Amino acid sequence: DQQDEDQATENTNTLPADSHTMKGGDGPLSYAKNSSFQRVVVDATKKMIDEVIVDKLDIEIIASSDVFRIADLGCSVGPNTFIAVQNIIESVANKLHNHRPRNSDAADHLVFQVYFNDYATNDFNLLFRSLPPSRRYFAAGVPGSFYGRLFPTKAIHFMHSSSCLNWLSRVPPEVGDRHSPAWNKGRIYCTGIKEEVTQAYAAQYKEDMKIFLDGRAKELVGGGLLVLSFGGVPDGVPLCQVPLGKFNTVLESSLLDMAKKGLVSEEIVDSFNLPLYYPSTKELEAMINENGHFIIEKLEAIVWPLAHIVQDLGKWASHTRAGFEALIKNHFGDEIVEEFFEYYTKKLVESRFMFQEDDDGNILLLVVLKRNQTQQP
Amino acid sequence: DQQDEDQATENTNTLPADSHTMKGGDGPLSYAKNSSFQRVVVDATKKMIDEVIVDKLDIEIIASSDVFRIADLGCSVGPNTFIAVQNIIESVANKLHNHRPRNSDAADHLVFQVYFNDYATNDFNLLFRSLPPSRRYFAAGVPGSFYGRLFPTKAIHFMHSSSCLNWLSRVPPEVGDRHSPAWNKGRIYCTGIKEEVTQAYAAQYKEDMKIFLDGRAKELVGGGLLVLSFGGVPDGVPLCQVPLGKFNTVLESSLLDMAKKGLVSEEIVDSFNLPLYYPSTKELEAMINENGHFIIEKLEAIVWPLAHIVQDLGKWASHTRAGFEALIKNHFGDEIVEEFFEYYTKKLVESRFMFQEDDDGNILLLVVLKRNQTQQP
Repeated sequence: DQQDEDQATENTNTLPADSHTMKGGDGPLSYAKNSSFQRVVVDATKKMIDEVIVDKLDIEIIASSDVFRIADLGCSVGPNTFIAVQNIIESVANKLHNHRPRNSDAADHLVFQVYFNDYATNDFNLLFRSLPPSRRYFAAGVPGSFYGRLFPTKAIHFMHSSSCLNWLSRVPPEVGDRHSPAWNKGRIYCTGIKEEVTQAYAAQYKEDMKIFLDGRAKELVGGGLLVLSFGGVPDGVPLCQVPLGKFNTVLESSLLDMAKKGLVSEEIVDSFNLPLYYPSTKELEAMINENGHFIIEKLEAIVWPLAHIVQDLGKWASHTRAGFEALIKNHFGDEIVEEFFEYYTKKLVESRFMFQEDDDGNILLLVVLKRNQTQQP
Repeated sequence: DQQDEDQATENTNTLPADSHTMKGGDGPLSYAKNSSFQRVVVDATKKMIDEVIVDKLDIEIIASSDVFRIADLGCSVGPNTFIAVQNIIESVANKLHNHRPRNSDAADHLVFQVYFNDYATNDFNLLFRSLPPSRRYFAAGVPGSFYGRLFPTKAIHFMHSSSCLNWLSRVPPEVGDRHSPAWNKGRIYCTGIKEEVTQAYAAQYKEDMKIFLDGRAKELVGGGLLVLSFGGVPDGVPLCQVPLGKFNTVLESSLLDMAKKGLVSEEIVDSFNLPLYYPSTKELEAMINENGHFIIEKLEAIVWPLAHIVQDLGKWASHTRAGFEALIKNHFGDEIVEEFFEYYTKKLVESRFMFQEDDDGNILLLVVLKRNQTQQP
């Protein structure tokens, strides 16, 4: 067990990290100012979190400890993480209050401790300086990849992660290797068309999810909840046929256009791939069941609203930049970043015809897992 | 109790903060590159920490939990905090190992969680990115003033703070008020000469130490240790007569010289005072006893070596700048910072005659407190 913990702590440091970090600071191109899309997800999950805490969180989990510990994994810099955490705290406090005998003020004595986790390259300075002054919890930041161990055993009661679990720990190496049958030539993401590419991405995702679930299984108390939301594809539909994939296709063709113009080499474009994967509900369900540490309390695919994105594709382009700038910079170099995103924004706005506001192929997976009480890791 | 915790969490946010923060980043003027003086303190306390853990830390405190939780208060950005934490972990692991029956590997199963605390304005980004890759502990950052609550009740087994407890939560307001008998005209620190000034500073220190000790008393488990090192004065000796005070006097006269030259107004110099206080052992002992939550396991004054400072006063000037730049900037404005520190460095090097390498008036207080087991907060 100790060996696992040591190993995990080591992994945290050896996995590549900085490419996955959202753009820091609070300037006009920062994640803090371009996370309104994630905000839609946060709002969509608020109702779910309330219901989950009422229906699925055992009152004993709340009542058995003086301190209720919450972790937000992949928190980035706010404000979304603060909103999500506040929702969780209010729901838990309400639940405890409703279960107390009348005239008891014991419910008000529960203390909350919140751990904000993200890569060490995240802008924790900004996160810490913008913590809500009126918060009623003890705050801590935990640097490290959630594809590794973050907390001691049974340290956390409730874990939450929003819009993060599509990020792989790395691009599967074979898709960038021209000698591999899984070489993803001329493409920059897992479109779902070429089978070897899909298999390579799916295998990486499975490997990452196993590490993720094993780690969380150790860190959660028995009966503790793991609430996740992230993007998915409808069963059997390739990503390139749904809006999220089409956005990637525009990014891809922008890079290919730059290669045609001679601004970057075609070879460098060929070796670039996004470390992102969108599973189907079936695929995800199979992984969780195979892992065996969790009971699936909820696994739902809801349609992710596209209307406000399609109405303002320029803003979506800024959002994409906040998420992808570090990736582009690391692979292609500093000097093309400005020109590239300018070109991409123009191209995306011109591609409006590709997107329908009522497209229902864009799905958000809402997942609630309960740590199995009986089976120990 | 909950009300206390809420109150404390609020205080954390309302106390002034950024002036006390060491200069971030890792440039030539940063704290990270100018903390070798504190390093001397860290080395001096290493031996003490080893002894304290062997002699004073109850084996039950280590053996009773799967996770041993350590907090370093006022950690700044490293590397000193990493060295101190590593010392503590090795000593605790050794102690546990030596108390186990032969042929048992149980000692190796203890897991460590380390909380690095400093103001939210500290450079946590640098701290997190420079965490030792080979560390064998779970790391977390906790933003907030230690003159307020930082952790839930009984959350920590061992607390450490080096070179921080001379910083007051604020300058006592009366010393900057020309209508007060405690007005510290023409001086920028508590020299120990004018009684009203000394009283105002001492009262502020007493108030701050009460909040500090009350907070730590709640956060430590019964029998948990609080290990502190910070500067002090010999009983009955005014600060201006010991080297640390003389350094302040050079800083002071540099500011007065700048006022004479018309670069800053005399009024602004008169309203500037350092938020620093150096107690005597007697004074400190009285405060701890009055507080009542701790047993004094050790309260020792050792002579702080001056030789390497006097030999390189230019480096000491850089060190002073790393600590005081934010204070000077906040009070006098950005524009004088460069010129001021250049002038101060020159003046300090010229004042070498004021300092003797073997001066024994400079003392470091080494304090080990054990949380009273019987008395609850």
